[in-house]
Amino acid sequence: MASKTQMQEQLKDLKENLLKMSTLVEERLRDAIQSLIKRDSQLAQRVIDRDAEIDRFDDFIDDLCLRLLRSGETKESYLRFVTMAMKIVTDLERMGDHAVNIAKRAISLNEIPEVKPYIDLPRMAEVAQSMVKDMIDAFIKSDALLARSVWERDDLVDSLNDQIFRGLITDTVRNPSTSQRAIHLVIVSRYLERIADHATNIAEDIIFGSSWK
Amino acid sequence: MASKTQMQEQLKDLKENLLKMSTLVEERLRDAIQSLIKRDSQLAQRVIDRDAEIDRFDDFIDDLCLRLLRSGETKESYLRFVTMAMKIVTDLERMGDHAVNIAKRAISLNEIPEVKPYIDLPRMAEVAQSMVKDMIDAFIKSDALLARSVWERDDLVDSLNDQIFRGLITDTVRNPSTSQRAIHLVIVSRYLERIADHATNIAEDIIFGSSWK
Repeated sequence: MASKTQMQEQLKDLKENLLKMSTLVEERLRDAIQSLIKRDSQLAQRVIDRDAEIDRFDDFIDDLCLRLLRSGETKESYLRFVTMAMKIVTDLERMGDHAVNIAKRAISLNEIPEVKPYIDLPRMAEVAQSMVKDMIDAFIKSDALLARSVWERDDLVDSLNDQIFRGLITDTVRNPSTSQRAIHLVIVSRYLERIADHATNIAEDIIFGSSWK
Repeated sequence: MASKTQMQEQLKDLKENLLKMSTLVEERLRDAIQSLIKRDSQLAQRVIDRDAEIDRFDDFIDDLCLRLLRSGETKESYLRFVTMAMKIVTDLERMGDHAVNIAKRAISLNEIPEVKPYIDLPRMAEVAQSMVKDMIDAFIKSDALLARSVWERDDLVDSLNDQIFRGLITDTVRNPSTSQRAIHLVIVSRYLERIADHATNIAEDIIFGSSWK
């Protein structure tokens, strides 16, 4: 069985890696949205090309957690922390996939004419990004208040999503030639909504689950 | 430490409960879609009212898994199975939430005039349902081939989703008064896509993850 110091070291390592992985996801999300706003397909391609980095973190942290579970420590708060970390890693990996999906749509959008500047979409991306960041902090610090604020932000994301959708429907009715653009943008806002959803689900687990401190 | 027989019993219990939970999710999904097709808001309301049952399974199976992890068994295949079960339960719970969301939209849709019968949506729901079922079977039997067939079906769901979306955009351009209906239906197909997504993600874990047999 691992010594207490060894286990504390491994837990610290786990937290640090979770932070690194979530920072990577935030960065990819920011780059994906920037590639759309600035019509920069090269940046979008970089987001796509670098997805494997996030996937490697997923495998690495999963293995780290399994190692922690094999230490033989059976304290419930400890097991809850490690198993929840495994769930979070799955969510982060999926968020990374959504950032890649946004980058792919950005490339398609950059090939068709711009209609008007994006307003709600960058706002929505900003909120989603803040949710990812705060969700990880809430988990690591076991901060239910912060988790609640993540959870509350989901309504804002949903209403921005609805707003974007209605705006695009109106645009398409007025000018059917923009329907291709509308389809891509609705899908982008859907990916943002899903990223926010992942953060919200974890936040719920933090609020309603047992504490691990 | 639990005896080998006790652990085998607990693992059997875990598998049975996972099957029960996934059957419940499939049922809710079927009822939610039926409530839409048959314009039966009472059925939709029942789906909403019974969400707590799925949530209880989530807590119950999570506790069961934690108990298994506390047995002190450190064999890697065993730990992988139990931790993956915990991830699957989270996915099932979210799928249940999406069924509830579909039921809520069905109630709103049942209050506005029907435009034409649904064709692609029931088809999409059927595929999503089959994915949930087969994903659980693939996990329990550690059947990578079945997992692959789940994974492949995701493309069909995505193309049905795109088809529905394009159809609704065309309808709305032709007849702007149907835009409210279109918004609800796009959101319903989005929830179906997310359910399929959860199944696909788990299928990927089964295909690419280490086996636990």
